[in-house]
Amino acid sequence: MTEKPHPEAIAPVTRAERAARQFHPGAVVWLTGLSGAGKSTLATALERHLFDRGLRVMVLDGDVMRTGLNSDLGFSHADRTENIRRLGEVAALLADTGTIVITALISPYVADRVRARQRLAQLNNSLLFIEVYVDAPLSVCEQRDPKGLYVRARAGQIAEFTGVSDPYEAPATPDIHVRTDQAPLEECVRLVVTRLLAELDAA
Amino acid sequence: MTEKPHPEAIAPVTRAERAARQFHPGAVVWLTGLSGAGKSTLATALERHLFDRGLRVMVLDGDVMRTGLNSDLGFSHADRTENIRRLGEVAALLADTGTIVITALISPYVADRVRARQRLAQLNNSLLFIEVYVDAPLSVCEQRDPKGLYVRARAGQIAEFTGVSDPYEAPATPDIHVRTDQAPLEECVRLVVTRLLAELDAA
Repeated sequence: MTEKPHPEAIAPVTRAERAARQFHPGAVVWLTGLSGAGKSTLATALERHLFDRGLRVMVLDGDVMRTGLNSDLGFSHADRTENIRRLGEVAALLADTGTIVITALISPYVADRVRARQRLAQLNNSLLFIEVYVDAPLSVCEQRDPKGLYVRARAGQIAEFTGVSDPYEAPATPDIHVRTDQAPLEECVRLVVTRLLAELDAA
Repeated sequence: MTEKPHPEAIAPVTRAERAARQFHPGAVVWLTGLSGAGKSTLATALERHLFDRGLRVMVLDGDVMRTGLNSDLGFSHADRTENIRRLGEVAALLADTGTIVITALISPYVADRVRARQRLAQLNNSLLFIEVYVDAPLSVCEQRDPKGLYVRARAGQIAEFTGVSDPYEAPATPDIHVRTDQAPLEECVRLVVTRLLAELDAA
């Protein structure tokens, strides 16, 4: 370094080296669905299951990210899009270093989810992106209302609330479709894990 | 999940579990310095060294992040601050899941670096934040000019270029101070690694 930087002297850590150390590549498991559909619950259960199997796994929860990275964003269409863009960027970055990233955020617009998938492919097209539609009817989500948000949205206290005053564009062809009002949590976890591990093995 | 989400049924993966699996906690090693001071070179060398020792390590390079997460930002004071804020958020998030994160970006303003440190402490105050001042005189950086940026800045083709037309607020009391114009790369790596490992062991 006395004369000038000489990066050629140091071999950067490669994707192959990272993958070899932990026996599996990274991936993005993208959970989309209405508020109250069970995304965070499923994410936590998936993380637990995969961690206990020895995999490197991490949850990016939209609500948590809004207290940090995305604390400057609201819920307008533009802000939601930016929220999802940033989450997609971070997810891709982490997946590219060998982490199985589970994202849990409403991500209501098709275009934003497509972009997240494309971004991962652009960064490393050998990595898996699995879109999981975490589905329960609006009436069921509204009945659950775990955070009391639907009550507030119906009372007009929350503008642009997905499913009430803002659209949710359901995936037409998700990689996995789980019906959280019909299947127990364990069954939803099994569906995702089976698919994920089969595809990771095939990769 | 048939009635409503029941997160109490699943125990989330804890920090302690992650740390136990990989034998070391996360940390943030924050490299700050002028363009051309050798931040990216040092980051790559540190990553290689720590990876080869079996640690979980990842570089967040400011230039790379500007092609992804921060692609919407320019170089005004406000945009630089936001650039550093987001990098600090991602670094804290990753450190909190057990990764040693090495950030390489100019990060010219004291207040932004202080905030990155505070953010990590706020998220998990048991984690280490090490500020490394990657220091070479402006004249040396300008002579190296690895990306030809100083030439363009002096020609007035780049506005708000740190060290030329925008200030660099050097750390008054960095945790580590490396002089890349005086010490060979191996010595700079050794300084950081010795301090980092000693503090991780003590943690």
